[in-house]
Amino acid sequence: MPIYHPLNVDEAIAYALNIPNHFPADAELECQEIGDGNLNLVFHITDKHSTNSIIVKQALPYAKVVGESWPLSLDRARIEREALQQQHRVCPGLVPQVYAYDEALAITAMEDLSDYTIMRKGLIEGESYPLFAAHIGEFLARTLFFTSDLAIGPIEKKNLVKNFINPDLCKITEDLIFEDPYRLSDNNNYADVIADEAKALREDTALHLEVALLREAFLTRTEALLHGDLHTGSIFATPESTKVIDPEFAYFGPMGFDIGAVIANLLLNLAAQTGLSSNEEVRQEREDRLLQMVVDVWNEFESRFRSLWNANTQDHMAKTPGYQDIYVTKVLRDTVGFAGCKMIRRIVGLSHVADIETIADDQAREAAQRKALAIGKQLVLNHRGLQSGADFISLIHMATTFKGVSL
Amino acid sequence: MPIYHPLNVDEAIAYALNIPNHFPADAELECQEIGDGNLNLVFHITDKHSTNSIIVKQALPYAKVVGESWPLSLDRARIEREALQQQHRVCPGLVPQVYAYDEALAITAMEDLSDYTIMRKGLIEGESYPLFAAHIGEFLARTLFFTSDLAIGPIEKKNLVKNFINPDLCKITEDLIFEDPYRLSDNNNYADVIADEAKALREDTALHLEVALLREAFLTRTEALLHGDLHTGSIFATPESTKVIDPEFAYFGPMGFDIGAVIANLLLNLAAQTGLSSNEEVRQEREDRLLQMVVDVWNEFESRFRSLWNANTQDHMAKTPGYQDIYVTKVLRDTVGFAGCKMIRRIVGLSHVADIETIADDQAREAAQRKALAIGKQLVLNHRGLQSGADFISLIHMATTFKGVSL
Repeated sequence: MPIYHPLNVDEAIAYALNIPNHFPADAELECQEIGDGNLNLVFHITDKHSTNSIIVKQALPYAKVVGESWPLSLDRARIEREALQQQHRVCPGLVPQVYAYDEALAITAMEDLSDYTIMRKGLIEGESYPLFAAHIGEFLARTLFFTSDLAIGPIEKKNLVKNFINPDLCKITEDLIFEDPYRLSDNNNYADVIADEAKALREDTALHLEVALLREAFLTRTEALLHGDLHTGSIFATPESTKVIDPEFAYFGPMGFDIGAVIANLLLNLAAQTGLSSNEEVRQEREDRLLQMVVDVWNEFESRFRSLWNANTQDHMAKTPGYQDIYVTKVLRDTVGFAGCKMIRRIVGLSHVADIETIADDQAREAAQRKALAIGKQLVLNHRGLQSGADFISLIHMATTFKGVSL
Repeated sequence: MPIYHPLNVDEAIAYALNIPNHFPADAELECQEIGDGNLNLVFHITDKHSTNSIIVKQALPYAKVVGESWPLSLDRARIEREALQQQHRVCPGLVPQVYAYDEALAITAMEDLSDYTIMRKGLIEGESYPLFAAHIGEFLARTLFFTSDLAIGPIEKKNLVKNFINPDLCKITEDLIFEDPYRLSDNNNYADVIADEAKALREDTALHLEVALLREAFLTRTEALLHGDLHTGSIFATPESTKVIDPEFAYFGPMGFDIGAVIANLLLNLAAQTGLSSNEEVRQEREDRLLQMVVDVWNEFESRFRSLWNANTQDHMAKTPGYQDIYVTKVLRDTVGFAGCKMIRRIVGLSHVADIETIADDQAREAAQRKALAIGKQLVLNHRGLQSGADFISLIHMATTFKGVSL
């Protein structure tokens, strides 16, 4: 068995050539390392003589974002690969296919999606994704429903929970999303001009209470196998197609965490339009479109999730009148609360989003940051009071126009 | 490594003699199998020449209660032993000490507590346990707090959750407590005279909704390492001392499940006083005492749990004002809901309690069964509305005098 070491491009090519039934015998492979470099090496391998290509992804034993000092278990490569396989089983069109893997080397060979654009980049450039809400609603409904106790037997469910215990990567989430933004921490990262906002976050105990409850849900509720990091940088999209990648943070947690991640990142892009749009008309149009996407993501998820429940649940108790409504309301509240947490951490925490960071104008960037924080706080503070999708729409509209921070 | 097989008494003695530093060299051991025979062999081994003794417990690969047709993982012997060790770490006086184990044979050698009486038997005989509420409150507060995210780091917590995934035995609980009493099932077991009650349970969808929510909590909430089967048959008690045994159902679940089990079994004994007490005066006295014990168990738990939280929590978010109150209220609601579920299943489900089954008089036994069901249903139906310990006391008093079923 090979000993773990980071591959170089020649080794990545040699590995790819050995995958059965992928490249033809006369293949002449080229390889480029294209990882954004936080946690993994990503080799893009193409054949000079055919259109065949492949991605070979290798986990690194540390998080590069903070140097080599943040060690991470290589077991996350197994978790990512097995999560991809679970997702592919129920959503074959919405995730890359796994072709091969090597556990000792922490590598997975998978479908090449490099003709897609990362959705965050597309949104920054003003691209519209008319089918995205339906696609991601399908992904969320199917991956969450079919890995929950609503769809699988209790023995299989518990063995899956065990298989996806992911302590290292959950700890990153717990620190960066639920802790650091609300305390003094070396991980935090924000410009002096919004130091007042960071201070207010540290002192807002009403907000802390809601975050503590959301953190508790993240720590203790094994509802379904989550992607665990479903921001727009983990989504490849074209106007016609959507592919979800990079589920290395996968674990069994509260469903709303994944849905909230999608919504948070659409709203971060909305907040950024202050600086991204070329004029008022464009800005209004994009903001309206993003707001509608947020509402559609929830609605597309909810309607599909309810249909799956009605069509697939054999279980006597889960058919009890009223139970599905209570369940869906819980998921909605969590969705909104987690969305708020994820917006806040992207402004004052360790890892920011390009939507806002790439705004060149200092004042526009600051305005976008303040707007994102205002929206995020409203979502967190109000999530427990939501009763319905209609409440959600009202809250989203209220939050995005909050305190004079108008659309 | 020895191959698994059920031990005979000679093999149990040979195993006990080999445990280092336990029996003297001249020990002459005697052995009796004293298991009640559902899931395990229990060998009580004594030395003719000293007061030394030991219990050797061996898991069987099936549940005897329904013959050999209900296979069970032998891994539960590991889970039971490791749960005992976790409990002993934080409550050394309240659980038997583990001396040795053999994983291949699924056996654990532990402290002999055979001079204690099983609490259920003592309660049936009218014994009072003035220190029980304080002891079990201490056990519950310490075992639940120190295995929760409130006390241990997230990496250690997740590894413990993984270690205590217990699919087989959780499945038994799920079927017997949350499913069978509410549907037609071959597992159910009740006399024809209360067939009306069983039918009402199957048709009560308001009740099913609450049970579905409690089942969801049991299935998905990894709050703390539970004992998992904390009825009065799993407790050795004298008026001065309390020892909790048999945690083979241990897994990470909602704290209220353990507290509810204790309360349910005290209330089952209360419901049985109709048939157990020799006269009205004795009955009134015992019912009052049991009702006070129920309230005391909660209060002793709550005050200790809050003290542990205040003294031990380093965590910034868990110190947020208001969070502890919300947390404790959640545990209270769960406690009451699970207590109700456990009372109901002991009347119409597979496994009954001797408190009621041993009532000789048919009418008195039926009255006790109906009373237990009435109390159980009130607890389940009202658990989500509780706000405080005072609400709990009101509900317990209301439930135990419900519908003319007076004390």
